[in-house]
Amino acid sequence: MNAEEIFRNIKHKKSFLCVGLDTDYKKIPKLLLHKEYPVFEFNKRIIDATQAFAVAYKLNMAFYETLGAAGYMSLEMTVTYLRETYPDQFIIADAKRGDIGNTSRRYAHAFFKTLDFDAITLSPYMGHDSIQPFLEVDGKWAILLALTSNEGSEDFQQQTLKSGNKLYEQVINTSSKWASVNDIMFVVGATRSEALSSIRKLIPEHFLLVPGVGSQGGSLKEVADHGMNDRCGLLVNASRSIIYADVTDKFEEAARREASGLQSQMEQLLRNRDLL
Amino acid sequence: MNAEEIFRNIKHKKSFLCVGLDTDYKKIPKLLLHKEYPVFEFNKRIIDATQAFAVAYKLNMAFYETLGAAGYMSLEMTVTYLRETYPDQFIIADAKRGDIGNTSRRYAHAFFKTLDFDAITLSPYMGHDSIQPFLEVDGKWAILLALTSNEGSEDFQQQTLKSGNKLYEQVINTSSKWASVNDIMFVVGATRSEALSSIRKLIPEHFLLVPGVGSQGGSLKEVADHGMNDRCGLLVNASRSIIYADVTDKFEEAARREASGLQSQMEQLLRNRDLL
Repeated sequence: MNAEEIFRNIKHKKSFLCVGLDTDYKKIPKLLLHKEYPVFEFNKRIIDATQAFAVAYKLNMAFYETLGAAGYMSLEMTVTYLRETYPDQFIIADAKRGDIGNTSRRYAHAFFKTLDFDAITLSPYMGHDSIQPFLEVDGKWAILLALTSNEGSEDFQQQTLKSGNKLYEQVINTSSKWASVNDIMFVVGATRSEALSSIRKLIPEHFLLVPGVGSQGGSLKEVADHGMNDRCGLLVNASRSIIYADVTDKFEEAARREASGLQSQMEQLLRNRDLL
Repeated sequence: MNAEEIFRNIKHKKSFLCVGLDTDYKKIPKLLLHKEYPVFEFNKRIIDATQAFAVAYKLNMAFYETLGAAGYMSLEMTVTYLRETYPDQFIIADAKRGDIGNTSRRYAHAFFKTLDFDAITLSPYMGHDSIQPFLEVDGKWAILLALTSNEGSEDFQQQTLKSGNKLYEQVINTSSKWASVNDIMFVVGATRSEALSSIRKLIPEHFLLVPGVGSQGGSLKEVADHGMNDRCGLLVNASRSIIYADVTDKFEEAARREASGLQSQMEQLLRNRDLL
């Protein structure tokens, strides 16, 4: 999927919502616990309930790895279900990987071939040869951490370099030259909306993956005001506020309502910008 | 295991060798391919052949994830085999993770509880709250990427900050204050031995995990000259040069010979420093 196709899906769905499947085994409604793969069963129902309002799904690897081989099975089954049932959805592995080239090639194979993800989040710390193997796979995306939503982003990301740039600006400047706007996106936390305007000056055309709306407190309107471009250029992720909106047997209805609410706001923001 | 216990094992084995189980399915000798879990079978035999010369094993997650659920099984079985058969070995998950606190807690659970690793490698990019959950688990270690052995380390790690420090020095200065020398180590590539002396000035007492000896070209003697401290303070990793020393049915003998050769050199380096 290239940037134009993502934008086409955004216009079609009138939404730039990414639903985060950070599925915590302990929070799954009891009625699913007797299933062979409760995590997959939960994901499947959340997907069915929210797919009309979303253009992307993001699976955070930590929640699957914590369950061992059974978690891995649920992960595989979720990606396969999405790919076969809703082929227009953009599927993101939130993995935050990054290793020497020889190893990154394995990860690229694991996430793009063994599993059929469209994109993977990566940490930029190890530099270009740790990212390159992901950029080489046709039609797949590297999503680099730039400015994250957590407190610890001050420790290193927001340090000023001798050149006058902050580290996250240097990451964006340097790595945006490694590939086209169809190969690379950046993570910018919704809690950092004040920085989005300056980031847009550095990379007017790139897509940004924006977590932190919802449970983490970021404002959707501010993100759109500062970050939206002529092809929307945003995938805004919400996880806990959707998938745990209700933990009884009404969870699907509650998730649908939350996703639908965000979609309505997003539709308005797209209209304000004359993109619909 | 604390730093003193690691040093005790180093003195006992007269070695500070870490064997990297970066097991590539395609390079496994044919005679093992009919087994149900060829990767585990290969690891088991490499471990049996090399354990007398090593104090640690490092499993790079990428090589297991690329095989899906079957890879995960081999990973679990390898950790269990090491733990039960050679309880003094220090077991490292080379995972290079790092995420927001809520997610890092999952990873800490996955690597330290679901699996029984002693340590995990982490990327520092997201700052203190992404590392903290790993430091909170008693007797377990966080190993932070500082200065890596690859070319891309120039892109960001070696950039100079306004304060005059390089980014990797800032990472070491800041994060070494988050926990004691029994909780945190740093990755410094063997190809950067010129930087080891200055790193030792910043952190005289910490253990360093040093990959890059062997296939990546780093010199063991230079690493010891610049990086050894009064408790050795080094775990030097070799992967491909040991585990693929021979790919026929003589692979165990060849791996043993390579590991034994490195152990002999390490024994001499420990004696030169009066640590034996």
